[in-house]
Parts: sequence; structure tokens; C-alpha cells
Amino acid sequence: MAEWDEQLVDERIEQRRRRRPRFTDDRITLAHGAGGKATRALVEGLIVPRLSNDWVAALDDAAVLGELEGRVSFTTDTFVVTPIRFPGGSIGELAVNGTVNDLAVSGARPVALSLGLVLEEGLTRDELEQEIDAIAGAVEAAKVRVACGDTKVVERTKADRLYVNTSGIGIVDERADLGSHRIVPGDQVIVSGTIGDHGIAVMLARGELELAADVLSDTRPLWPVAEALLTSCGPGLRCMRDATRGGVATVANELVMTQDVGIIIEETALPVLPAVNGACELLGLDPLYVANEGKLVAIVGPDVALEAVAALRATEAGRDAAVIGEVVDEPAGRVLGRTAFGGHRMIDLLVGDPLPRIC
Amino acid sequence: MAEWDEQLVDERIEQRRRRRPRFTDDRITLAHGAGGKATRALVEGLIVPRLSNDWVAALDDAAVLGELEGRVSFTTDTFVVTPIRFPGGSIGELAVNGTVNDLAVSGARPVALSLGLVLEEGLTRDELEQEIDAIAGAVEAAKVRVACGDTKVVERTKADRLYVNTSGIGIVDERADLGSHRIVPGDQVIVSGTIGDHGIAVMLARGELELAADVLSDTRPLWPVAEALLTSCGPGLRCMRDATRGGVATVANELVMTQDVGIIIEETALPVLPAVNGACELLGLDPLYVANEGKLVAIVGPDVALEAVAALRATEAGRDAAVIGEVVDEPAGRVLGRTAFGGHRMIDLLVGDPLPRIC
Repeated sequence: MAEWDEQLVDERIEQRRRRRPRFTDDRITLAHGAGGKATRALVEGLIVPRLSNDWVAALDDAAVLGELEGRVSFTTDTFVVTPIRFPGGSIGELAVNGTVNDLAVSGARPVALSLGLVLEEGLTRDELEQEIDAIAGAVEAAKVRVACGDTKVVERTKADRLYVNTSGIGIVDERADLGSHRIVPGDQVIVSGTIGDHGIAVMLARGELELAADVLSDTRPLWPVAEALLTSCGPGLRCMRDATRGGVATVANELVMTQDVGIIIEETALPVLPAVNGACELLGLDPLYVANEGKLVAIVGPDVALEAVAALRATEAGRDAAVIGEVVDEPAGRVLGRTAFGGHRMIDLLVGDPLPRIC
Repeated sequence: MAEWDEQLVDERIEQRRRRRPRFTDDRITLAHGAGGKATRALVEGLIVPRLSNDWVAALDDAAVLGELEGRVSFTTDTFVVTPIRFPGGSIGELAVNGTVNDLAVSGARPVALSLGLVLEEGLTRDELEQEIDAIAGAVEAAKVRVACGDTKVVERTKADRLYVNTSGIGIVDERADLGSHRIVPGDQVIVSGTIGDHGIAVMLARGELELAADVLSDTRPLWPVAEALLTSCGPGLRCMRDATRGGVATVANELVMTQDVGIIIEETALPVLPAVNGACELLGLDPLYVANEGKLVAIVGPDVALEAVAALRATEAGRDAAVIGEVVDEPAGRVLGRTAFGGHRMIDLLVGDPLPRIC
């Protein structure tokens, strides 16, 4: 897709390699953010070799991606999760998958990412290396590339280890005709797998709770899941959302907010791992509001709902997919839950924050 | 360029407007980062109305920009400047212009920006409104649009008021054939205006120095300057760099580092404002290393250098443009300064950081 002189790029990479500085410090200092020799050692000695590709190795002010055929999708996300490592993942993986998934639910195949790092003075080399490696692994798994980057350093107590921004460019799949405006009553609400895993994994990793449970973050790239829906549903796929901050309940509320429809969620149909359910009960949380980092919500026409679930279950990330609800006429603008006893409860947007800094 | 259903977008904006929540809090709290009602009030009540355009108002996970004709350029930059406001600008303006300028020096007309905010708990509504307004103003001046955004909140002492990441997409001008590999001995080094203004303005704004001087940051969009060079130089324009962190000295060093050439800078030819010169002398700084936020360095063929300077001086941002040096065979990989007395001094990369968190 990108058109450049491959030989020229090879030569430039080779030139860089010959003169590559080494990063020999044990901790990040303010000097690493100054733009001089220390910055060069950090960027070219530690970061670039781990993310090596033609775009990153060129190290210009901007990366020229070449011509992109098709409609371009663009998104951004900053990650401030604490702690930076947790069972099932870390901030680096989250930063790649989060942005890849924003593209995927817009119907776009992810192509290129940017990487903006804010490092706290005192961050250890080990911590940073682990995260750059996590980013490299996630980038490879998601079949995307880091095209450009930026690194800043702030004084101790002016950040929390590191914050990571990723922005992403994708190409919208030709079959995608997505948007909440396409939702109509009768449409089915599908979730691609178990809900609440990520939020609970991070909460438990904080160690503030007298609670041990084996819950792993679900952080993963969702393009294969989105593609399965595009293939199986055709125009019956109305829209997709990744259910991150605020969980499935927040996604459902955002969908009904601009449309004259409501959503009824069948609470007994929600896929929730027993360990997540148990932790939620102890913490007084509702899994519907807990963040996911590898689950999407799809609204599909009633005639393609079964095919959609079957297609999702055939993917690795979608094997617990389920229909969890339906779009209704009334009450418009509202999300209701139908409980195990047949009653209804209001599922509103939350005001406060039960789980701060979860992503 | 972007192809979407204008009527549909209008309807969606109208729907949003009818139901737009109001942001009524005096300060940012953790709840504003949680993804629920408070986040919606912040994003839709305060941020989006100030940045209003079709892309932002849609508020989907990703913005579909439509088809982009030509080669796409992609860049990212995070801003952590302190203080967030300083004479001549503020972090919001800097964040827009910095990314616009990375695109401009890659030969690309800026098209769309992303906006990633990290807000510190306790940030006042006034501070945030001022910065969103600054972003809106800079976006308009640079003729670009904010296409997508993300907002996170961290606890007090986990950031410093606010950090801003912007990533940018641009379309490479058809006339641009740029890269440091095109530099050859005999080429001329041009700077588009006075150097060191931004760094000194921010230093003085910190108020730690017993020094009063009227120095304004030079933050501004450089696409008109880049375009003047593309038009006036043709293929004689070898490459451009914006001289931000580390100043002109760092840019010159980066250029010679991968090529088998050196650069001689005529120190008497450097355009420096008297107030900047005076402040630098008192602070023991060399203006060559001080950050600019509205100046680019261009390398051009000797036959087009005069036309280039004339074209720059015809632009508002380039009226103090000057030839400041020459590309030489020897010493390869080195930047030398020729002083007023005819002697030479080495202009190396700095190791430490005389001016931390300047951008």
C-alpha cells in the first residue's frame, strides 16, 4: 500500500543501525525528554529497535504512509491505567488493542498507529522495556504498525509511571454501512463474549481488596470479530461499539440516546464468568457497568442474529458470544433490564466512578 | 473530500444539540473520567460545542474521514509544557500548531487532528475552557479539524493541570520530494525566522528568574511557510524540520547524523531578537539550542536559496527568514559554528536538559 523507495529505506535503516546509540541508564531522568543525546539514546537505543519497521526506523517528524485506498477512519485513546501491569495484560497491550478496537468497531481494518509516551522521572528501564515489548507484541498480533511516536518526560509525581496515547488510522471495509442511525426496533443486541473481565482483573491487581480470584483482563484485538460480523451479516449489521469504560450498560445508553428507540437487556442471557460475578457481588458492582477491553456490542437485524452469533463463536475471541437483548419502540431513550424473575429495572448511565483509571 | 450524508450528519448534530447536557461543575473530578453521565456532561457540554464540526459532533468511537486523495502523512506529539499559559500562547495552541507543523515539514497539508486530554483532578472549569477555546482558535487558524478525541482524568499529583496529545493526518503535496537523504554539499541552510522565542517565553513565564523581558512564544502554524518553499524551490527543496525541543542546533545535528555531510552555521547570520539574546546571556543559554514552536529549518539547493528566502519573507510567519549556513563535505557528521571572529566551534547534541517541559 505504501509506496516508497524500498532500497532507500533499507539504506537509511542500515545507516541508523550503524550509529545506533545504546540506552545504558537504569532509570528515566528529565534529560531523556530534552531532545538531545539522552533522548536519542532512549528513542533509538531502546524504543525503536523493539518496534522495528520501516516507518518507525525512518524517525522523521511525520511518517508518510503512502496512498490509502478506501475511506479512512481515525481515532485516538489515552491510557492511564493503574497498576500498569495486571493479570492478562499491561498498559502497553491495552494501548494498542484499545485503539485497534475503536477502528474495528467503526468497520475499519487497522493500518497504522501512533505512539505518544509520557514517562515519569524514575521509571525503571525494566518497566519501560516491558511495556515497549508489550506494545510490539500487541502490534504484531493485531497486524498493524507503529508509524510515528513521541516521548516526553515529566518530574516525579507529575505522572503515574507512564501514560500512553495511541491514535490509529484504518481503512473502512467496503461492506461496512454502520451507524446508530441504522438501528430499528426489533434489532438484536449481541455481545461478543463474557463481560466485566478487564475491570475486575485491574481492581484485583490493585491489591486493596481482601479478595483473590483468577480473573484475566480480556485485552485483545477485535478486528477478526468485527470482520466475522461484516461477513456474516451484510447490511444486517447496524453498528458496533467496544464496551470499554462504563461497560455494556454505557454503550447501550449511548445508542438509545440519539435514536428514538429503547433497549431491553435479558439479564439471564449475559455471559459473565463465575469469578467475575463473585467479585462483583462482593464489591457491590454490576458487571454491566464494568469495563471490557476485548468485547464488542453489535446491533444486528433479527434475520441475521443467529448467523452472527454462529460466526462470532467460530472466532477465538468470540466463542462466548450471545444475543443479550433487543431494540424496542418504547420506552424510547431508555435501557431496561429484564431480570431472572421477569421484572424490569432501569439501567441508566452512572454518575460517579466505581472503578477509576481502569484504562 | 470526505464523503458522508450531509443531511444525516445535520440530523445527528441536531439530535445531540437538543439533548446536550450542561457542564455545571467548577472543577474536574475523577467522575468526569469514568465514562458515565459526568463524562458526557464534560465532553458534550463543554468540549464538543467549542470544537464544533461535523466530525467531532458525531462522537463515534472513530471518525470516518472519507477517501483521502494522495499520500497520507501521520504524526503524533504530546504536550506537557509548564506553565500551561505563557506570553504568546498556551498548551492548547501549542498542541494544535506542534502537530500541524510536524505535518507541514513533511510536505503535507494538515487535514485532521485527534485530541487526547489527560486532566488532573482539581483542574478548574475556567482553565479547561480557556484551553479548549485556544485549541478551537488554533484549529481554525491552521484550517484543520479535530476529528476525534479522548478524555481521561487522573488523581491530584498524577499530572500537572493537563497534558494534551494531538495526532495529525495530512496529505503530502504533490511537489514534495523531501528527505535528509537528498541533502548534498553546497546546499544552503535556511531558518524561517528568529530563534529561541518560545523557550525563553516559557522560562520567563515560570517566574523563577529575576528577569523581566517582553518575549512572546512564536507558536503558529507553519503550513503557509512550507507551502511558500514548495512553490518557490521546486525540487531544490531538500527537506524541512521544525526546530522545537533542542532548537536549531539539534535539528542540524539530526540532519548530519545519517548523511555523510556536515553543516557550517554562520553565527552572525542567526536571527535572534535582542530580548531573547539578552535573556540567553543572563541564563547562560545558547539560542541555537532553545525551542521554537513556529520556525522551520529548510535545506535548499544553492541555486534556489535567494528565491526561497524572498518567498519566506513574503509570508507573515517568515518575514525574518535568513540563510544561516551551508552543507559541507567535511567534517562529515558534524555541525560547526563560524563565530563573529572567523573561528569555529563545535555545535554538538546536548546531553542534559537546560529547559525541561518546554513543550
